Amino acid sequence: MNKWRFDDKFVQAVYRALNEAGVDYMEIGYLSSESAFSREEVGPWRFCGEADLQRIVEGVDKKIKLSAMADIGRIEPDDILPQSESALDMVRVACYVHQVDKAVELAHHCQDKGYETTINLMAVSTVGPRDLNEALDDLAKSRVPIIYLVDSFGAFYSEDIEVLAKQYMERLPGKTIGIHAHNNQQLAFANTISSIICGINYLDATLYGIGRGAGNCPLELLISFLKNPKFKVRPLIKVIEEEILPWREKIDWGYFVPYMVTGVMNQHPRTAMAHMESERKDKVLEFYDQVTSTMA
Amino acid sequence: MNKWRFDDKFVQAVYRALNEAGVDYMEIGYLSSESAFSREEVGPWRFCGEADLQRIVEGVDKKIKLSAMADIGRIEPDDILPQSESALDMVRVACYVHQVDKAVELAHHCQDKGYETTINLMAVSTVGPRDLNEALDDLAKSRVPIIYLVDSFGAFYSEDIEVLAKQYMERLPGKTIGIHAHNNQQLAFANTISSIICGINYLDATLYGIGRGAGNCPLELLISFLKNPKFKVRPLIKVIEEEILPWREKIDWGYFVPYMVTGVMNQHPRTAMAHMESERKDKVLEFYDQVTSTMA
Repeated sequence: MNKWRFDDKFVQAVYRALNEAGVDYMEIGYLSSESAFSREEVGPWRFCGEADLQRIVEGVDKKIKLSAMADIGRIEPDDILPQSESALDMVRVACYVHQVDKAVELAHHCQDKGYETTINLMAVSTVGPRDLNEALDDLAKSRVPIIYLVDSFGAFYSEDIEVLAKQYMERLPGKTIGIHAHNNQQLAFANTISSIICGINYLDATLYGIGRGAGNCPLELLISFLKNPKFKVRPLIKVIEEEILPWREKIDWGYFVPYMVTGVMNQHPRTAMAHMESERKDKVLEFYDQVTSTMA
Repeated sequence: MNKWRFDDKFVQAVYRALNEAGVDYMEIGYLSSESAFSREEVGPWRFCGEADLQRIVEGVDKKIKLSAMADIGRIEPDDILPQSESALDMVRVACYVHQVDKAVELAHHCQDKGYETTINLMAVSTVGPRDLNEALDDLAKSRVPIIYLVDSFGAFYSEDIEVLAKQYMERLPGKTIGIHAHNNQQLAFANTISSIICGINYLDATLYGIGRGAGNCPLELLISFLKNPKFKVRPLIKVIEEEILPWREKIDWGYFVPYMVTGVMNQHPRTAMAHMESERKDKVLEFYDQVTSTMA
């Protein structure tokens, strides 16, 4: 929502807080080739170049691992450093069902360079059962050890999570499953808890739920729930006060009617985001009528 | 949060919207004797006098039922009109476990006057198992047909709801159970869904989650989830736009760190509300340290 234009002070503060809180991984940005975007248009966290990363990690007793999301088509495989030369520990590849082969290829490439890898299968709430099973079967044959269930539109109820978690585990024997939830219906945290109960072990969350549109599962809620002594809540509250609350003055995320409407209707939030950025932001009935009329 | 000072235009708009949406009951305010408060200090919805009610219901094809909450000690039983002379259909009595006898007495009095009744047992997240069972046994012996499970502090996870719903149903044979959730941990809607799955049938919700502190289960989410054709979402979105969103400029409800902290710590939100009303509202670490140090 800010074109990856977080300044170093912000990223360092978040990195130090998560490290101190005992969080296992921090996703620091996207991995893209410098040729894919202009540094004049987007901030450093669209690239996660090694020099960018080093500015953040230097001087910190690093316990946390760093991950970055790789965009199919936006990163030249040859531009990815060997893991031994990088501060990154993990590369996550997000893809739609029709891109699974490309995602596996890119993830294998990263694995061969020494990275931990995941594949995050997006927008599965809109995928038919046969297509989903085919994609899962392809992922099962891959060497990628972690596969994410992604509720891109914030459309899932806990019952959906239970059904899909079972399906993922059955179709992906030996793999670890992750969850990435969006908060359009105020269910991101609840669905993450349901995921834990179902045996899902990689849990995505963000400070104060910050994220595109309705945002994500709030990390401070998740860590408070887990009650694992390895995690500390206080550094999270501190960095929320110092670094996240100021962003609330600049960008809107969280529960708003347009995001709720696209969540309920199982649609991409782009129309809701456009509405929220317009001057008619509070004209929520107009938005509701637009979305529901196209579904009639 | 506004001392029950909603003007008639607001109450009429909400009443008409809920009526049109097919909602079963609207809780319009508290039932108190005129001697208990001054009308100069609090608004009409602290009393729900018959003249107040008539200003709202007149001219409307009333399908929805009206309820009011009776405050033990603030309402003289003789001040309650016979139901045949009132626009109210239901009286709900909220009480703590040590007040169950008084609550049953008041509820029976209302039943004898022709009202539907419920008893809402508050703050059960802080009640020991023996005390809770005793209270439930007393309620089981009463003629009150509907008993509410109330998560006053927004402290419950869905697993707590499942355990308590089972306990309430076993201890209260033949009664209907209700749920009243608070949203401190963004779980009010999720816990209401869990309640439905457990067989709880009276579901409290508020427009856009408006309510004390973190607020409650958002009605528009609940109605969208239920997918029962008797309910309509559009009137809810319309009245949210016209009447509820303007309140966001005046009062804060919803997910804020202080409410999250009292929810996680299973405490009354009064300290969080005081913090939110102070000039140090955004000093959330200070609040976290206060609350957690008193628990150490």
